[in-house]
This record gives sequence, structure tokens and C-alpha cells, in this order.
Amino acid sequence: MKLNFSSISWEKTGVRIIDQTLLPDKLVYKIIKTPEEMASAIKTLTIRGAPLIGVAAAYGTALAAKTDDKKKIQKAIKLIESTRPTAYNLFSALNRIKKVLSETNDFSLIIEEAHKIKSEDEILCRKIGEYGETLIPRNARCMTHCNAGALATAGIGTALAAIYLAKEKNKISRVFVPETRPLLQGARLTAWELSQNDIPVTLLCDSARGYAISNGMVDLCIVGADRITRNGDTANKIGTFPLAVLAKTHNIPFYVAAPSTTIDASIKTGKDIKIELRGEEEVTRIKGVQIAPKKINVLNPAFDVTPAKYITAFITENGILKPPFTPL
Amino acid sequence: MKLNFSSISWEKTGVRIIDQTLLPDKLVYKIIKTPEEMASAIKTLTIRGAPLIGVAAAYGTALAAKTDDKKKIQKAIKLIESTRPTAYNLFSALNRIKKVLSETNDFSLIIEEAHKIKSEDEILCRKIGEYGETLIPRNARCMTHCNAGALATAGIGTALAAIYLAKEKNKISRVFVPETRPLLQGARLTAWELSQNDIPVTLLCDSARGYAISNGMVDLCIVGADRITRNGDTANKIGTFPLAVLAKTHNIPFYVAAPSTTIDASIKTGKDIKIELRGEEEVTRIKGVQIAPKKINVLNPAFDVTPAKYITAFITENGILKPPFTPL
Repeated sequence: MKLNFSSISWEKTGVRIIDQTLLPDKLVYKIIKTPEEMASAIKTLTIRGAPLIGVAAAYGTALAAKTDDKKKIQKAIKLIESTRPTAYNLFSALNRIKKVLSETNDFSLIIEEAHKIKSEDEILCRKIGEYGETLIPRNARCMTHCNAGALATAGIGTALAAIYLAKEKNKISRVFVPETRPLLQGARLTAWELSQNDIPVTLLCDSARGYAISNGMVDLCIVGADRITRNGDTANKIGTFPLAVLAKTHNIPFYVAAPSTTIDASIKTGKDIKIELRGEEEVTRIKGVQIAPKKINVLNPAFDVTPAKYITAFITENGILKPPFTPL
Repeated sequence: MKLNFSSISWEKTGVRIIDQTLLPDKLVYKIIKTPEEMASAIKTLTIRGAPLIGVAAAYGTALAAKTDDKKKIQKAIKLIESTRPTAYNLFSALNRIKKVLSETNDFSLIIEEAHKIKSEDEILCRKIGEYGETLIPRNARCMTHCNAGALATAGIGTALAAIYLAKEKNKISRVFVPETRPLLQGARLTAWELSQNDIPVTLLCDSARGYAISNGMVDLCIVGADRITRNGDTANKIGTFPLAVLAKTHNIPFYVAAPSTTIDASIKTGKDIKIELRGEEEVTRIKGVQIAPKKINVLNPAFDVTPAKYITAFITENGILKPPFTPL
């Protein structure tokens, strides 16, 4: 599976990334030459998506490693750590880099570790895609939510990996892409990346998902996940839960595709997941345009929790799983 | 119940309306002096909302009646008829005006008929509100959808009428207002009109309704309707159906408030309602700003159908009803 764009790559001149803030208007690649530039790219969401941020963070330190100056590498790690305080993948990637740094003075090994982090993510996506693809029937009309795609990973995505591999087997008839308010990742990113790879896309408002499903236009749903608890309750982008309820009401399968690291079996149920409430401006303004009264009270949760009973199966790199998940 | 604004009124200088395209940024009243100006106001959505359009249409012909020139009145009727081809209330109001015109040469009776159409709508809203208010408990946290309020009628609205009258009895703790993509009537209109009348409002994305309901933040839902069939299936603004499903899943009441003329008992079930599919630009552009790839396929239904089994009761000016409804 070769996509028609590449979210991140290590080039002679630096790390090549897509400026995702310019999507879907323009596909602009940017060469990141220093750790400072990478930190800024991560902070400004020029590059985003949990797994992709991990790879970007590692490559940011690899740029410092090219200087062969330990202090510069340490400084790069500190700087990049400060960019997105809640990004799990960013810290786990940097911890691996730190470990290498503590064990050797051959800084080329840091560049190697960064390559390894990237290639592991590519393999992970591929495996999730391979398992997920088996669940997709011929002429499938899929619905997803938000962006769990190649733009969020170094590989072919998680939920969208299954769709890309099913497309290779000519099994995809159409993908319905909810716009995913408030930040419109569906409209801006998913619709763009699927179209770029010649997959027929239908964009719709989040509130039109009920129309599409109740009119028999959708065969299955497949979404990503931010956190999965021991019993299978799943936190994902706001709007995932209502989609799962609609899928169940209409007896269509609802799959969650995610790396097994997303499963946190130390958390018993979704009740124990703390949901981030975000600022009102994401709702009251779109691209700087005011769309609601000023000074209005706003409820803007970043995620919702889908109880396990609404989820048909979990697609991970280790296979298709059902809860309960065992703590490690 | 006196609201802090008035959607339409007959003044010495003309018909005073709110320029609704400027909401929620500014409350600007506009004096409409000619039928041509009224036709243009209806066409450009300066004035909107099914019942309010009916009153506006009648007043548009009343402006012509002031000239005492039958030809001008006939011309006004034709012109206004051409503005919104699917607006039921517009045609039913104009038909009443036509009937008066066919029966008399005293054109002041046309102005009287227009006043009658307005005052009937006010009484209708009030009655719907009075019945609806009885269903609202103390300290109620309500959720609505779109705008079934005073801005859509000549009175205090339909769904919102119940909320306004419950507010008078201090029963309203908070109203959750989904933004209602694509046209954002919730964010622009409902949030504005409730705030103007000192009702605590929380605005949220349509996709966050599941979060609010599943977290026990909502006691009941109350929405308007565009068309109700004999068995109680109800067409209303896109996104109503998923809200009804969420309400049922969480055992909270879901009420539909509408004038009895919305019930079309000649239609057996929701399957027979033809849903208007609207243009893609409503989804891909917001206030002129492109938010999705150009040339993308878009599904943009204006309405969805909520099956009767999801609706707890129907609130009309004739009381609280349950289907089946008998054809007249």
C-alpha cells in the first residue's frame, strides 16, 4: 500500500513534514532542519496526530544528534517535551531516545532509534490495517469519525488503515466522513487524505449521520480511540458515542481500531476516564469567524466515552480483540 | 410573557422586522415599506422561520393593500409566492389573502386579515407553550435543537414557548442548545433569543449532545417539527433523530411541539416524506470560509425523520397528543 503523500520522512536536508494547518487547501511539504523548528511545528499543530507526534519528537532529537553535541541533544529533548504536555506518544518516544542517550556516546544510535520508532509505527498501522481489512465486506460503505488516518501516523493510519487495505482489494464502495466539529478534522483531514488516495468520499455534518445510517447507506463504522479501559469502554473524539448508539440501533457493526498501547487495563471502566473540557472559542468561532453570541456558556468536551456494549470488536496490531482486557 | 424583542410588527411607517442575517452579532430592526422589500427580505432569509414567513407574506400583501390598488395587491401576491417555493405557511397565508381579495373591494380587509394571521399565530404559540409548560418539571435542564422559537414565529415560538412559560414559573435551570449544523440556527438564533430573555444557555456542538445526555446533564428534550405523519413519525431539522435516539437510550422524555397544521394525517408514515437534499456549500463553507476540500461529494439533507416510537408526546395548541392522528 503506497499512499499519495507521506506524513513524515527523513531527508538529507532535514525532516520533511506536511504543513497540516494548510490542509485541505494546499499540500505543502516543509523541511524541518532543527529541533527548535520541530518543537515549533508540534506546538503549532503544523504536525499533529498522536503517533505522528511521537515520531516527530524522536526525529526532532535526531536532528540534534546530527551535531554530535550531547548538550544540544539534551536541550532538544527538554524543548520538545514542553510542546504538548498531554501527548502520551511524545513522551514514550522521548523516553526511548533518553535511554539510548544514557547508554552510549555514539549519537548515530539516536538517529537509528528515531528511524526505529517510525518504522515500528508503520508496521503497527499495517498490522491494524490487515486485521481490520478482514472485517470489511465487499462493496463496503463505511463511516468513520475524526481522523484516525495516515495524517495522524507515520504509516497508513489506524481506522483508515483497514479502509486503505480494503481499497487495495477493491472492497470499498464509499466512505462517509462526518465533519467532526468543533475542529473539523473529518472535513479538513480525513476527506482530504481519502480523496488523495482515490477513495470515494461523502462528507456530511455530524448531525446527518443518523440520516445516512437510518436510510441504509452505511454497512459498518470504524473509528480510532484515545483510551480504552479494561472493560472495553472507549474514549475517542467527541461525537463517537452518538455514532456508536446509532450503529447499534440499526444493527450495523461498530469497530474501534487502535494500537494495543491505547488499552489501559489499569483503568476499570469509562467512568474513571477524565474528559478534557476545552475552550469555548473552538465552538463559537470557526477559522476566526464568530458564529454564536459572544459571552455565551459553552460545553466543549474533547472526547466522549462509548460503553463497551456498543463496540462490536477492537482491532489492534495483535489481532481482533474483545474485552475484558487483562492488566499487564 | 413579554419577550425582549419582537420578530414582526405592523407600524405606521411599514412592517418592522429583525434582520436575522445580522444575528447574533447585532439586533437590527428594519422597516419594510413595500411588497418588493418584503419579498426580498423573505428570499434573502432576512426574515425566516415557517410561521413567521406566513405572517410576513400576509403583511407584504397588506403593504400593497395600503395603496388601494387591486393590481398592485395581485402583483404583490405573485411576487411573494415566488420567494420560497416550499414554504407551506407562506402559501396558506397567501391563500387566505387571495380569498379576501376575491370577495371584496374593501382592501382594508386584507390588512385586517394579515393582522388576524399574526394574532392567530401568537395565540397558537401561547397555547402550545401552556400545554408544553405542564410537562416541564422544576429545575429543568432542557435540550432543544435548531430554532423553534420566537424568531421563527410571530409569537413566543413552539418548542421554546414551553420553555419561556416554564421560565415565568422559575422552572428552567438551563437550556442546552446544539449549534445545529450546517446553518447553525442553534448557535446563531436559539442561543441568542434565550439569552436575550435571561434564560441560562449552554451552547454545544451537535456531536457533544451524547456527552451531555450520558453524563446526566439533561432532563428532557423538546424540539419543533416540519411535518408529522399519521403514525407520528416526524420530520424536523437534520440532527433531530439522533437526539431522539440518545434521549430514548437514556430514558429521558423527548417532546415534539408544533401547531396541529404540521400534522399531515394524509401521509401514513415517515417513509412517505420526501427529504430535501441541499447544496454542498452549506457544509463545505461557513460564512464564506472554505472548511473542506473543494469538489468533494457532500450529503446535506435538510431534515431527518424521527420514528414515532422515539417521541414521548406531541404538544399542539389542541393539547398533548399521541398518535395515530386521524385524517381530517
